[in-house]
Formats: sequence, C-alpha cells, structure tokens
Amino acid sequence: MTHEFFKIISRVEFEALLNSFPAVGTETVSISDAFGLVLGEEIISPEDLPPANRSCMDGYAVNARDAFGATEGNPAYLECTATLRVDENPGFELQPGECAAIATGGTLPGGADGVVMVEHTHDLGSGTIEIRKSAAPGENIMLKGEDVAKGTPVFQSGHKVRFQDVGLLAALGIKEIVIHRKPRVGIISTGDELVEIDAPQKVGTIRDVNSHTLRCLVNEAGAEAVNYGIVRDELNKLESTLEKAIAENDLVLLSGGSSVGMRDLTVQAIESMQDSEILAHGVAISPGKPTILGHAGNKPILGLPGQVTSVQVVMLALVVPFIRQLMGQKDAFSGTDRFLVQAELGRNTVSKPGREDYVRMKLTHREGMLPLAEPVYGKSGLLKTMIQADGLMIIPADTEGFYAGNTVSIWKI
Amino acid sequence: MTHEFFKIISRVEFEALLNSFPAVGTETVSISDAFGLVLGEEIISPEDLPPANRSCMDGYAVNARDAFGATEGNPAYLECTATLRVDENPGFELQPGECAAIATGGTLPGGADGVVMVEHTHDLGSGTIEIRKSAAPGENIMLKGEDVAKGTPVFQSGHKVRFQDVGLLAALGIKEIVIHRKPRVGIISTGDELVEIDAPQKVGTIRDVNSHTLRCLVNEAGAEAVNYGIVRDELNKLESTLEKAIAENDLVLLSGGSSVGMRDLTVQAIESMQDSEILAHGVAISPGKPTILGHAGNKPILGLPGQVTSVQVVMLALVVPFIRQLMGQKDAFSGTDRFLVQAELGRNTVSKPGREDYVRMKLTHREGMLPLAEPVYGKSGLLKTMIQADGLMIIPADTEGFYAGNTVSIWKI
Repeated sequence: MTHEFFKIISRVEFEALLNSFPAVGTETVSISDAFGLVLGEEIISPEDLPPANRSCMDGYAVNARDAFGATEGNPAYLECTATLRVDENPGFELQPGECAAIATGGTLPGGADGVVMVEHTHDLGSGTIEIRKSAAPGENIMLKGEDVAKGTPVFQSGHKVRFQDVGLLAALGIKEIVIHRKPRVGIISTGDELVEIDAPQKVGTIRDVNSHTLRCLVNEAGAEAVNYGIVRDELNKLESTLEKAIAENDLVLLSGGSSVGMRDLTVQAIESMQDSEILAHGVAISPGKPTILGHAGNKPILGLPGQVTSVQVVMLALVVPFIRQLMGQKDAFSGTDRFLVQAELGRNTVSKPGREDYVRMKLTHREGMLPLAEPVYGKSGLLKTMIQADGLMIIPADTEGFYAGNTVSIWKI
Repeated sequence: MTHEFFKIISRVEFEALLNSFPAVGTETVSISDAFGLVLGEEIISPEDLPPANRSCMDGYAVNARDAFGATEGNPAYLECTATLRVDENPGFELQPGECAAIATGGTLPGGADGVVMVEHTHDLGSGTIEIRKSAAPGENIMLKGEDVAKGTPVFQSGHKVRFQDVGLLAALGIKEIVIHRKPRVGIISTGDELVEIDAPQKVGTIRDVNSHTLRCLVNEAGAEAVNYGIVRDELNKLESTLEKAIAENDLVLLSGGSSVGMRDLTVQAIESMQDSEILAHGVAISPGKPTILGHAGNKPILGLPGQVTSVQVVMLALVVPFIRQLMGQKDAFSGTDRFLVQAELGRNTVSKPGREDYVRMKLTHREGMLPLAEPVYGKSGLLKTMIQADGLMIIPADTEGFYAGNTVSIWKI
C-alpha cells in the first residue's frame, strides 16, 4: 500500500478533455430506428409540404368573395357542384357562386381560397348550401408549402431526433437518414472482493453492483453496453481484458479501483496499452474524485471510482454527456437536457471550496409551494443515499454552500 | 357528410375513465431487463447489507480508544499485526495497541471500530504505524446492515425501477423480480388519403405520419408498439383490422378519423366489436378534442384525432400516462415525471374557458434570467408547430390565459 498524491483537474477541464474525442462514425438507418439518435447530415426538405392547398376542416371550399359578410342572420347561398373525396386531386376550377364539399385533409379546387366549417352551413337540398359565416382568404386552409417549403433546411447535423422529427421526416417521404451509430461501451468491473450477483452472501465479498448500474445508464444514454464481467486485481488479466474491450468498443469504462492499490493497477493497465496516455488522474467533484481518463489510440478509457454512489454520480455528471457527445450530439455537456426542479432548501448545506459537490437530495411535495429539498447524507459506499434521493443539487466549486430557505435547482434523477 | 354534436368530457373525467382499466399482468424477469419497468411485488431485503462492518477507506483498522487524541504533533504508535486482503473474512480479534492494514471495502476484524485513512498515517517499518489523527468509533466504516437491514421493505409494488434500484437489487443478490410485463399497443392508421412514407409525392395523398410518431411515443413510454399499417375508410376492413389488433394487444390506438365521417366510422367499428362500449366521445382539451375512448371486453381502444399535432398532444397528455398506468405505475397521471421549466411568458396568451389548452412554446435561453417562453401558433394540421416548440404550456380549463411577464411552467417535450 503506497501513499500517492495525484493531480486533480476541474470538472470544466475534464470536460474539455472529453470533448476532444471525436464522434463515432455514421450509418444510414430507417427513420423507424432513428428516434433518440443524432443526425450525421443536414436534412433539406425535398418537396413542398403540403404539396397543394389543403383543408383543415370538414366543410365547404369557397371563394372568400362569395361568402363575404355571411352571418347567421344574413347567410349566403352557394351551389355545391362537387363532393370531393379526401384523396382527390380536383381537376376543375370553382366558378363564382359555387362551392365544393371537402373533408379535413382534402385538396382545394382551383378558385377556392377558404373553407367554411360544416357547423356554419346548412344543406338546403337540391345542391344549395346556406353559408352562415364568412371565410377570410386562407381561412381553414393549409397553404402549399406552409409546413415546409421545398429546399428549406429542416434539421442540422448534430440534432437529436425527437418523436415529432420522425413524424416530419415521414411526411416528407424521407425513409432513411444518416445518423451517428450507437457507440459500443465496454464495462469492466475490477476488484478481488467482487462476486457475481447470484453468489451467496459471504463476509468479505461484495456483489458486483456497478456492472448493472453502468449498463442501465449506458443504455439510457443511447449506447450499447457490453459487459466484460469481473476481473480480479491481477495486472495481466486486467491488461488482456482491457485490450479486448478496447478492440471491441468505442469507449471502455473500468469501475472499481478507488482504493489506492486498485487505482495504481488501473493506471498501469491503461499505460500498458498501445499508443496510450493518462490524460487526467482525478476530477474535482465530490463524490467522484478518483476518476481517471486515458486513451489507447483514439479510444477513450475511463477509470471510474469503485464506490457505488461515486460511480453513479460520475456517470450522470460526466459519462452520460460524454456518450451523447460520442453519438454526435451538439452541446452534449451544456446540461440543457437535465431535468431541473426549483425547490426550497430545507437546511444549510455546506461544501468544501475547490470542488464541485453533487449532493443527493430528497424532495417533498407541498401544495401551492415549492417542494422542500433536503440533503440525504451518507457515505459514498452506501447505496441508500441514491435510493432515497430524488435528485442532485450541484454546489459549484467557487461556492461554500447554500442556506436554508434559498431557492435551489434540483436535478431530478 | 353529417353534422354531429357529441358530448365531450373534461380531461379529469377522461383520466378517471382511463384509470378504471387494470394494469397488465406480471412476469418474472432478470434485473438486467427490469430498468424502467414497474414492480409487481414488494421487495423485502433478504439480508443485511453490508453483511459485516466494512471499511470505506484505504487505511488502518483500529480500536478508537488506541488512537484517541492522536494528532500530527502527538501521534499514536500502533503495531500492525495483519494486512487484510479486501476479500478476507478476518478470523482474529484486534488486541489493544494493535492495528490492521485494510483497503476500501475490506471487512474489519473483531475489536476494530474505526479506520484511520492512510493519508494520516506513516509506516515506520518493522510493523510500527504512526497514527496522526484520531478515529471516532464508526469513523470511515459502513456498519453491518447500515445500507439495508435484513427484513426491511426496500421497494413497493408499483414502483418504477430506476438505475440505482437495479444496483441495490444486485447488491442484495436479487437476480430476478416480478414486474408488470410490457403492454403491447396496436397502432392503426385510418384514412383514404393516407399512403406509406415511400410513396412518391402526389396531390391528394398524405404520407402516414402518425404511425411513426405513435410508435416512438409508445416505445418511449416503455410499451411495445405493433403497427397494423393503413386502413382505408371502409367499415369492413376497419372492423377486421381492429378485431385482430384487439386480440393481439393490450391497448389499441386508432389514428385518423378527426373528420366527422371518419369519426363516425371509428365509433361504428368500435361498437361492432364484441362486448364493446363507447365511454367518451371527446375530451375538453385543445388540440385533441375529437378523442374517442371505448373498450372491447377488457381492452381499451382510443380513437385519436388524425391531425398530426393534435394526436401528438393527446399522446403526451393522456396516452403515455395511460400506458404507464397499464404498466402498473402508481400515480401515472400525477404529472410528477413531467420535465417542467420555469420561464417568463413573452406575450399575452389567451385560451377559451372550458377547455384545457396545450400551447406549443418556444424557449429562448437568456443568461442570468429565466428563459423566455413564446407561443408557436399554427394550425393543428401543420407539423411545424411541434417541430419548432421546445415544450407545452398548459392553460387550465378555468383560466382565460396568462399575461406577458408571468412566470409560467413549460413542459419540455
């Protein structure tokens, strides 16, 4: 057991290092498989949407002049010359005094520039329609190209595909798009004390928690988790597993090694890889300080703390955004996709200056007031603080804490 | 084309009807597959976690009495009688004046009740350790059962499994749990004007957007989407497809039919199913009013509006929470899992009283201020309002709107 000092860098510096790794390659996928992935190309609309003027309502297509001034008390009377099928491309021109029955989504005939809703009309029989409300030009119509005009840029490269975006792509007839493929993330648990979760309880052993939590968070980030199981504290075994994981993945996460001896082993294993370098020996966040960043060739390797809570915080604060960046997402570290809740802090909460604190917080709903946020204290080796917590409160490195009564942002987890 | 009035009910009444459908059945799954699913059983801890007193630090296990009052200037000197392997179950008792080297996660020997961190010690050689800091009893130790005591209820039935919960289950050696299975949700698009997305652009046709957006949202809710393609406006065809979808799924979503004629057809098709009933003909929300709820046997059927934006709002506001309820989640309609952002409203935004409005909103980030929220107006047949929107602002049915300058909650989408 050696006593080692190691240089730690700020969270901002650590993110800058992570940011220097390029996104993974792109591939073409069906839009059915694109939800949540990140565009690797700009999308330009190939056509006008809608392709012609369409009705937004069930009713009658009219020329607005013919219905001008129509009211309940002073209706207009128009001759209905056609009942349009919804999928019809009307080949005729509406003449003055005429109207055509049209359904929602139907295409307007030439000469029509408005639709009067069926609720404001009355069919008098023999083809005469009483119109009880005027229609301004363009009323109840989607104009040709109003949704998207041909040639318009629709989405930028680096945009995360949302459900509504999949809908727009479908509407434009874009069946396949170029996205960044899902990164593969290798997960290795290290530690002589670790056993598989089906091992019976035995004093001295600890079941492998981190492989499971890391897998969940990697998958939730949108990447593909590949577990390499538990590796004992043997340099040779760790080196060969790490080498295999690097070859097979875009990012490798080692968890364990928060003890000084294990940290040394992780550093040694990373350094023994071809074309490798340690970029950071720690990051000034709490919990999560003993986080190591290295690379082998162009593949990033993160040596995460073994403490169950520390590793969960590091995953949320740094690794999940890093995975999103590897997936090509712009501003992956901006934090704008964090689910923040305003709350009233229930007690003074202090932090050591010089490190960014991620305090586990419990939220209590209060009718008509901000929820009450109270810290959940406990050692970072305990799982229960994250189990009891509803969110995290970040105390910046240049702040000594917050006072009871302060309005604070809680990042829901 | 007929002019039909139909009774609409409030969103709260509609939710109460949805709430009357029971959750789907349960099954046993590996915890590796449980993330995001909902527990169908209560979990009781089968053992103490940790099973014995464990060190949280690299250092020396001591009896606190022996290190009492130790400082840099006035250290204590203890005899190190053992170097414990991290996975060792120490079979000996620490005697007065003795200590044992221990790593993070290691089990304490009998007689030890504290750990002095290695940073506060110095190995003088020949087995003598200089202790430069006292350790209070319990310091740097996780006590037996401190995380979870044997027999404690850990999670309630109806709890949604989070990543940290998977970790705790792993730690407790719980390999399999009972969860509500993923509901299967059948999706049928209806409308004569609809064509597949690979159809060339043609005036009069509309590519099938809703099948795609619904699939994304159903999957995101945690259910399994089953698409039944496009059905033309023919009662026979719609009936046979609906019958098949009901047999094969836990919930059926019909989209299209927001025109009066199509709505009639949807109602007729639902009513023709065995043991069926229409429960609601509409809901007082905008967009989304023409939403039909029915059932066939114990299977719920929703007739959703065909307008692309309306259906997306109904999915977010009602169908996604309904799917979570079918998955067994407690309080699925509480809205507590909505990602709300506080913002300053940029302009007066009015709403018709008597209906709950879901206004599409654009958020603009402003340094050091609340973001600015501005409504994105546009017809509900246009896709672009949801594309441009960052979120929804809900104007309750009993409110006429909000003023520019008001602080409002925007539900990020």
